[in-house]
Amino acid sequence: MKVAKFGGSSVASAKMLEKVAGIIQADSDRRVIVVSAPGKRYSDDTKVTDLLINLCNAYVNGESYEKEIDLVIERFKDITDELGLPEQILHEIRKDIQSVIHSDYENELKKDAFKAVGEDSLAKLLSVYLQSLGMDASYLNPKEAGIIVSDEPGSAQILDESFDHLYKLHDRKDIVVIPGFFGFTKEGKLMTFPRGGSDITGSIVAAGVKADLYENFTDVDSVYCVNPTIVDNPREITSLTYKEMRELSYAGFSVFHDEALIPAFKASIPVCIKNTHNPDGLGTMIVSEKHMTPNPVVGIASDKGFLSLYVSKYLMNRELGFGRRLLNILEDEDISFEHTPSGIDDMSVIMRESQFPKEKEERVIRRIKEELDADMVSIDRGLALVMIVGEGMHSTVGLAQKATEAFAEANVNLEMINQGSSEVAMMFGIKESGLEASVRALYKAFFKGQ
Amino acid sequence: MKVAKFGGSSVASAKMLEKVAGIIQADSDRRVIVVSAPGKRYSDDTKVTDLLINLCNAYVNGESYEKEIDLVIERFKDITDELGLPEQILHEIRKDIQSVIHSDYENELKKDAFKAVGEDSLAKLLSVYLQSLGMDASYLNPKEAGIIVSDEPGSAQILDESFDHLYKLHDRKDIVVIPGFFGFTKEGKLMTFPRGGSDITGSIVAAGVKADLYENFTDVDSVYCVNPTIVDNPREITSLTYKEMRELSYAGFSVFHDEALIPAFKASIPVCIKNTHNPDGLGTMIVSEKHMTPNPVVGIASDKGFLSLYVSKYLMNRELGFGRRLLNILEDEDISFEHTPSGIDDMSVIMRESQFPKEKEERVIRRIKEELDADMVSIDRGLALVMIVGEGMHSTVGLAQKATEAFAEANVNLEMINQGSSEVAMMFGIKESGLEASVRALYKAFFKGQ
Repeated sequence: MKVAKFGGSSVASAKMLEKVAGIIQADSDRRVIVVSAPGKRYSDDTKVTDLLINLCNAYVNGESYEKEIDLVIERFKDITDELGLPEQILHEIRKDIQSVIHSDYENELKKDAFKAVGEDSLAKLLSVYLQSLGMDASYLNPKEAGIIVSDEPGSAQILDESFDHLYKLHDRKDIVVIPGFFGFTKEGKLMTFPRGGSDITGSIVAAGVKADLYENFTDVDSVYCVNPTIVDNPREITSLTYKEMRELSYAGFSVFHDEALIPAFKASIPVCIKNTHNPDGLGTMIVSEKHMTPNPVVGIASDKGFLSLYVSKYLMNRELGFGRRLLNILEDEDISFEHTPSGIDDMSVIMRESQFPKEKEERVIRRIKEELDADMVSIDRGLALVMIVGEGMHSTVGLAQKATEAFAEANVNLEMINQGSSEVAMMFGIKESGLEASVRALYKAFFKGQ
Repeated sequence: MKVAKFGGSSVASAKMLEKVAGIIQADSDRRVIVVSAPGKRYSDDTKVTDLLINLCNAYVNGESYEKEIDLVIERFKDITDELGLPEQILHEIRKDIQSVIHSDYENELKKDAFKAVGEDSLAKLLSVYLQSLGMDASYLNPKEAGIIVSDEPGSAQILDESFDHLYKLHDRKDIVVIPGFFGFTKEGKLMTFPRGGSDITGSIVAAGVKADLYENFTDVDSVYCVNPTIVDNPREITSLTYKEMRELSYAGFSVFHDEALIPAFKASIPVCIKNTHNPDGLGTMIVSEKHMTPNPVVGIASDKGFLSLYVSKYLMNRELGFGRRLLNILEDEDISFEHTPSGIDDMSVIMRESQFPKEKEERVIRRIKEELDADMVSIDRGLALVMIVGEGMHSTVGLAQKATEAFAEANVNLEMINQGSSEVAMMFGIKESGLEASVRALYKAFFKGQ
């Protein structure tokens, strides 16, 4: 059994839904379908979820909201008209919206309920459409499916009992269409998941039904081994592990919200990222373990906007708790950090620049100098991180040499190397200005001519 | 004005003291002399300080100790006889020992007083010897010199007021001989410094008199740029900075106990390490700042006996305080550590193996797994650290490449690279078995053919 999740762009129009239906029809194992709300059809378009948020805001502010309701209905009407589906669906959607408006939920919960209408309506619509094509399909509400979540509007967490409920779907022979993005508390209150919500539902359902595969249909053919805005036509990654995916998504890769994968990861369900426009393409598989290859490097990730805070003090390593006290000052100043590489008399703290606005600089430097009696404190902004990612790198002789050669070839100085703390990644810090040249040189070193 | 300190091997015999006198005579700027107690004359010999510790132990245990006194006196008699000095000196030493025995000090303080007899007697002896050669020399007790220390027997710390007292020596025209290793509390109690005590006195006195140079006479011509037991006839270091010295002494270099340098470092007094057997050699200068050279690397240090504790947990970087809680467990288990490089979902803790005996392994691993819900915890013993040290390395493109090339040439896998946290060092972690091959390859890369 496969769980297939279709993202917003994959369900944005009637034409896209025809493709979705074709994909479902093409493989009888695709029996649980999770859908997002219709996304943008063109770059200036508005997502249905955003239309619903506008509606919610108008309602909450006591303004007229009839026009906002009509805009939502129109988006669905475009689809039903083109697919030749009965008007009845649109009446139901309008009725659902009205029932949110007239519910006795507080505004915070109403917002979640408004937002959920997009996914919910699309799931209903898709199930009717599949039936119209002669398929044995039916809509399933998350409440009936047993997706039970914590009472945290806008950032619900799945409760463990859900997985047992979902396992009951394993034996169903028909095609089940479940709206993504939301679940229900034990008391029956609707709550939405945090960012990446439909991916979360897909991952939860795949874990619950113990799927053989969780297919995540989106609008790219696969994950590239390097940022395609830096390197033209880069190599596609056919297979990568959860760990690799996570290291890649840390610095610049944004195919997935990585939390979304946790339930699938914990249940060891393989994930496949595929393109709705090219369903027969290989896509990218995300797995728990993989066979080792002579070149263990799967990808190069990179991101700008970091800074390094450097503190040096003679005999620092004799001073018990120096590092802790430094981090305490940062915590006190509401600055969160990424890494704290240390030397003998030096310590660096690497963080995103957004964490340490310029107006805090003077005060924080003064505090560190005074409270810790540091010899030198300096801040180096405009840092980029480059990660070379791959399981098995750890035990391959000569990879660091290959990487540092590439940086030298690009004439880029290495401000920082952090290797060995992660089994699957080497991290390099450089000046932002050297980022593109470095990434191109690394790509050439690790992926060209193989 | 120069302060010259002579270590134990430099004052071990009459022949050595003749060399010392020659060195003092050769430069009229050498006006403050600090001495250790006589060290070993040959490999099976016993240091005077150890003879005094034996004497102390016999006394404390209520055993007969006359023989132990005689052994101490004999060592000095060998010297006075050969130098033709009056027997009066030996009587005074015996009297000093007797007065320690009959003092009303508690045993803990008596131990310090016994140990100090070695340095004190040699200083007296040397001053008489210098006088016999026609020099205007005199012995100066640390109490009269104003070396005031904290009340911590065996690990006294210098008090700041001492430096003002010592500055009075600046105007003396004669040669002053001060015994190293001890000072006095404000209440007049004798206390010894921790390990490296005579170096500490030398450094304190040099800072106090604002010396132009602190000369530290020992039994090597200079500091080598790499361990001479690994590389034959390695290059000598003519000049290095305090920071470089400290990074080098961290991993395997042991010319100096690095704390000893703090007072000189704080007063910006340059230090010169020289060989008593070759006083006209250049020696090695330790300075605050130096000019940059095309090859900024001054030395390669290496040490065995480290281990790495590796902890991985999916989504670790989302978990606030994970690192702190890990370190808390180690603190709780009395394990102190050196470095904590971190990845996104991984953290390593590097420590000396002696900190983490095998019998603690099972319990600590279980605690980390259970209390932190870690996915994987492992311990990698038999790790060696290799440091490449040099100010200016930080801003030189291609050094990491050169280093990693050398490791690859030696066919040694890099378990860890920590670069950028220190401005003056790059740290590499490798398996102990690869240490010698790596160091030789690095030496070839950085020092051969220059």
